[in-house]
Amino acid sequence: MVQTTQPNAAGKDGSMTRRRIMSGMRPTGRLHIGHLVGVLTQWVEFCKTDEAFFEVADLHALTTAFEDTSAIKRNTTELVLDWLAAGVNPERCAMYVQSHIPEISELHLLLSMITPVSWLQRVPTYKDQIAEFGSEIATYGFLGYPVMQLCDIAIVRADTVPVGKDQLSHLELGREVVRRFNHLYGATLVEPQGTLSEFPDVPGLDGRKMSKSYDNHIEIADDAATTTKKVRSMITDPLKIRRNDPGRPEICPVFALHRMVNAVRVPSIAETCRSGALGCVDCKSELSTKMNEVMAPMRERRASLDEAQVGAILSAGAEKVRAVAKTTLADVKTAMRLP
Amino acid sequence: MVQTTQPNAAGKDGSMTRRRIMSGMRPTGRLHIGHLVGVLTQWVEFCKTDEAFFEVADLHALTTAFEDTSAIKRNTTELVLDWLAAGVNPERCAMYVQSHIPEISELHLLLSMITPVSWLQRVPTYKDQIAEFGSEIATYGFLGYPVMQLCDIAIVRADTVPVGKDQLSHLELGREVVRRFNHLYGATLVEPQGTLSEFPDVPGLDGRKMSKSYDNHIEIADDAATTTKKVRSMITDPLKIRRNDPGRPEICPVFALHRMVNAVRVPSIAETCRSGALGCVDCKSELSTKMNEVMAPMRERRASLDEAQVGAILSAGAEKVRAVAKTTLADVKTAMRLP
Repeated sequence: MVQTTQPNAAGKDGSMTRRRIMSGMRPTGRLHIGHLVGVLTQWVEFCKTDEAFFEVADLHALTTAFEDTSAIKRNTTELVLDWLAAGVNPERCAMYVQSHIPEISELHLLLSMITPVSWLQRVPTYKDQIAEFGSEIATYGFLGYPVMQLCDIAIVRADTVPVGKDQLSHLELGREVVRRFNHLYGATLVEPQGTLSEFPDVPGLDGRKMSKSYDNHIEIADDAATTTKKVRSMITDPLKIRRNDPGRPEICPVFALHRMVNAVRVPSIAETCRSGALGCVDCKSELSTKMNEVMAPMRERRASLDEAQVGAILSAGAEKVRAVAKTTLADVKTAMRLP
Repeated sequence: MVQTTQPNAAGKDGSMTRRRIMSGMRPTGRLHIGHLVGVLTQWVEFCKTDEAFFEVADLHALTTAFEDTSAIKRNTTELVLDWLAAGVNPERCAMYVQSHIPEISELHLLLSMITPVSWLQRVPTYKDQIAEFGSEIATYGFLGYPVMQLCDIAIVRADTVPVGKDQLSHLELGREVVRRFNHLYGATLVEPQGTLSEFPDVPGLDGRKMSKSYDNHIEIADDAATTTKKVRSMITDPLKIRRNDPGRPEICPVFALHRMVNAVRVPSIAETCRSGALGCVDCKSELSTKMNEVMAPMRERRASLDEAQVGAILSAGAEKVRAVAKTTLADVKTAMRLP
């Protein structure tokens, strides 16, 4: 269904070692099936094979949205519901809210003391994002974003971090700060390794990459009727006007989604689309039926959970994380010889 | 003995209101009698009339001394011993170590999100200190120093902060951040008022301002013999060479110290110095006797305390502070609508 990184690294003796993985998402709203077949499928695998820490990055959300914070709380619940719906198993990982871990803030202040301002100003995304969001986001917190991101990772001593290409420079900065810390105060922090996670683009209803900002997405939380209606509205090959016209599945977003949820039928759909035997209406109908079939257990799981249960999962997650975080922070303070 | 600010502000009805005062010092070593007759005397008064929070600013020390932190722990103990020796009453204030209050770091991260980088770059001391200490101190933490200072104040909701002239720009920036917070999220933080505290310069052994960096100081912790020896080495009026030469008390550092510890004898000393009847040896001898008399109870108090007792005082102080700090932080998070 999706390419993931190698879930386990083989040790020297050929044995499999459990990695400690840290990843997170900002609470900006519900997730869509693009997230599902990409990052969330990878997270589900991590839960099976590795030790995983998944963070709701509410403090990161403040870097670009400090002026209106009214949706963060609701979005946190929605985000975690989507994780759970997708099958991320809270018993096999730690799911938690960043601001519930005070040790992250403490480590952030300490590491900020050894991070040259010039390193932060050089991060390529810093100027890019100011250009995108406007100069009012040029806050002290926004400038320090890569330090905060490092602290998320370092506080749980994660050794592995799934990253997209655009985040490689942040991780590299983080690794430099860790090296500087270990050089100044003795080996204390783990230098995290990035594992490049690039997922195939999932096309949206209009054929562009599925994205909330294009409003061309199908949410994990969408019900069957909404999904069917959205699939029915999808664009297809513009040259296939009548039912019997031959189609080009390789450029059709409906076909791309078949690949994701209806793999066994793909060869036959490709053939009948090309021959003209399969019309778009029927093809879409099969897609929405199949998609609803795949999504049904996720929707059920999502519907069976309420805010209180999410709260309990996040509390338990914070407790797990703080057990590790307190030790890391104590080691850091000892290394720095603080009173 | 020393000019202090008005210890209490009269309310509208003429009543006296207890202020909440916050101040701190970096743990950089033992204090000298210049600190004693200046800031520490003021602190002793604050304990009597106001609600006072006195912080060992160990995290601030990291902004300029992150490369060698080996002395911070010992210096913290020495600093607090000097406070206690001077008569700052731990029962009537909170004495605590900055890094023992995680809520300061948490608030720092939150307020960093609403503090424009440009405000921090404009603080006059930022460039001055880089010029003084070198560009290696241009760290992210050093740039954010005024935010950290604001958090020390804001976390205990202090309304009054004694400041020297050089710190007025920091406080003004802090007040702006508070106003911005209250504007964005609703009235939550107290806007602290500065109370300008300028103390008369205490001359050192060489006539320049007493300062550890000039090595011309008498420590609070110095014993009687050391004090006597140091006073004997003081410079006096260079034109008074022989005992009977007339002296100029107004330019003599020995005379300046008489003013501080031997006020009743000042008119007579001035007269006999000017006439030539009083020689420098006798004058110094009287000063060291008097000074040792004044310092004796402080030295005894200092000697009676050990590291464990200082630790207990700082633990109790941290507990007092955290009771307030937790409430402030909870209010801040609620105002920001964090999960």
